[in-house]
Amino acid sequence: MADINKQEGYYAVIFTSMRTDGDKGYGAIAERMEELARRQPGFIGVESVRDASGSGITVSYWESLEAIRDWKRNEEHLSAQQKGRDQWYSQYRVRICKVEREYGF
Amino acid sequence: MADINKQEGYYAVIFTSMRTDGDKGYGAIAERMEELARRQPGFIGVESVRDASGSGITVSYWESLEAIRDWKRNEEHLSAQQKGRDQWYSQYRVRICKVEREYGF
Repeated sequence: MADINKQEGYYAVIFTSMRTDGDKGYGAIAERMEELARRQPGFIGVESVRDASGSGITVSYWESLEAIRDWKRNEEHLSAQQKGRDQWYSQYRVRICKVEREYGF
Repeated sequence: MADINKQEGYYAVIFTSMRTDGDKGYGAIAERMEELARRQPGFIGVESVRDASGSGITVSYWESLEAIRDWKRNEEHLSAQQKGRDQWYSQYRVRICKVEREYGF
């Protein structure tokens, strides 16, 4: 989390999901997607938590809406999104948000 | 998650945190805070995941920035925030965001 320390004016993509049972190739592709996202222009960082029940929240941070759109259209990512809908998730929701304020310690 | 299905124009508070070891009264007060938040005017919903390592992401959804501010100033919540800094979390970060777009299945 330590490298995500931008001031206002960036974007967060909140991805909430529920995994189906079994790996079905998910683990390897999830790792690959994180690796690819980190190389995308405008990527700032990502935080992700999944509990033993399969419930997960991933938040990725981006410089602009264009950067988010470009990542969504990445070809390998499109294929992963399809597998997500078909096999890996029983439900998910994506929220694209503008970060207006932040604090912490 | 099913009750969170608002259209654009609402707010998300992303709370990322790392728990210290041991409960230290955290579990009961976390439950109480959720119960209180649900009663606050402008509260829409909350999603929360913590994994076995203690890493957690909670996202709460609100009608307005005023509703978020009022919840932050709630007296019992202020006391919980203090315990959070003193005992429960080794680090946390709060991001207040405007939801601009959403989709899912």
